[in-house]
Amino acid sequence: MGKKIQLGTKILSANEEYARQNSGLLRERGKYCLNMISSPGSGKTSILTQTITNLKGKLRIGVIEGDIQTQLDAERIRATNAPAVQINTNGSCHLSAAQVRWALAQLPLDEIDVVFVENVGNLVCPSAFDLGEDGKVVVLSVAEGDDKPAKYPAIFSKSRVLLINKIDLLASGGIDFDTDRVKTDTRRLNRDIEIFCVSARTGQGMENWYNWLINAAKKTS
Amino acid sequence: MGKKIQLGTKILSANEEYARQNSGLLRERGKYCLNMISSPGSGKTSILTQTITNLKGKLRIGVIEGDIQTQLDAERIRATNAPAVQINTNGSCHLSAAQVRWALAQLPLDEIDVVFVENVGNLVCPSAFDLGEDGKVVVLSVAEGDDKPAKYPAIFSKSRVLLINKIDLLASGGIDFDTDRVKTDTRRLNRDIEIFCVSARTGQGMENWYNWLINAAKKTS
Repeated sequence: MGKKIQLGTKILSANEEYARQNSGLLRERGKYCLNMISSPGSGKTSILTQTITNLKGKLRIGVIEGDIQTQLDAERIRATNAPAVQINTNGSCHLSAAQVRWALAQLPLDEIDVVFVENVGNLVCPSAFDLGEDGKVVVLSVAEGDDKPAKYPAIFSKSRVLLINKIDLLASGGIDFDTDRVKTDTRRLNRDIEIFCVSARTGQGMENWYNWLINAAKKTS
Repeated sequence: MGKKIQLGTKILSANEEYARQNSGLLRERGKYCLNMISSPGSGKTSILTQTITNLKGKLRIGVIEGDIQTQLDAERIRATNAPAVQINTNGSCHLSAAQVRWALAQLPLDEIDVVFVENVGNLVCPSAFDLGEDGKVVVLSVAEGDDKPAKYPAIFSKSRVLLINKIDLLASGGIDFDTDRVKTDTRRLNRDIEIFCVSARTGQGMENWYNWLINAAKKTS
């Protein structure tokens, strides 16, 4: 066990060094960067395509897409005309800061105000790897259930924003989801987190998220 | 990188040794064992509580619950009067065969026909760790989207059964989910997989899964 912990520490340190480089580059260029983390299928890409489309003319967004396989998500982003770089991890369960450093060099940063990193769909592992971002955004779909902050506390305790997505599904009555429980459990872990209830599909609640994002980006540039 | 790969191999080998021990124990005792894997909130625990309740008198089920934190899932299982052992991984993203070996020793195996292991909610990492089970069951909720077999191929290629869950939500019209696409993409990875469309909530389609399970368990005992 001693060896395992030691090596884990070394891997994290190498990652942290790359993360520091990314953070330095982003700060130097005046770019705001958010790292989006969620389970598979919580709606990260849909939130991004809606955010890009609705903030056209107000905020220029570039995206680094992390997926184990396929270019599907980068293609969805590019359909909005935003620049996107796809990273395929080929089995790995999270993005590393070194991969993000490579991707940042591919993006046309001069034409971008905010860089979103869409991490691999995984509510656990990505929370342990800093990528040099300004903050983490955790997305939780109401279909996943209201017990998730209690069961997966790490990412909820580290995030700057929680987006509770797919709230349009609550109207159908087929889902038991206590929004207050999620808010209470999350704020118990993280007093300062911003929580927005949204539906990327219908647009419900998205204005609040857009306003927060515009203000957060302004402070950086 | 060389060192990293080497250590990864060693960890897998130690895990495989424990998995072999678990498999031997289960075979010796004539127990059938399934390892359930999915994203957080796909409905693994709900499928188990419904399966236990509806097969009462036909099949005695015991459960090993894997979670990062909390006893919530084991409590839900125990409410059905089935025996359940909770493993808290304290941050780790998957169950190990050593943890399952410990849990098997806690279960009253004499009173059990089928052991379900409910893995940590994670569509990526648990697929790489054999626990000594007879087969893996992957659960995909329709709310997660129909692109998941393409984007997360490992678990779909290794599973014996795919349960497409929460199909009752399709009736509301608020979800775009092409069941045929999921079946085609999954069978491209895994010709022999059994696929059942179910709703643990309404009971729709669950009979087919129950029948498959009863037959699979019979072959072992």
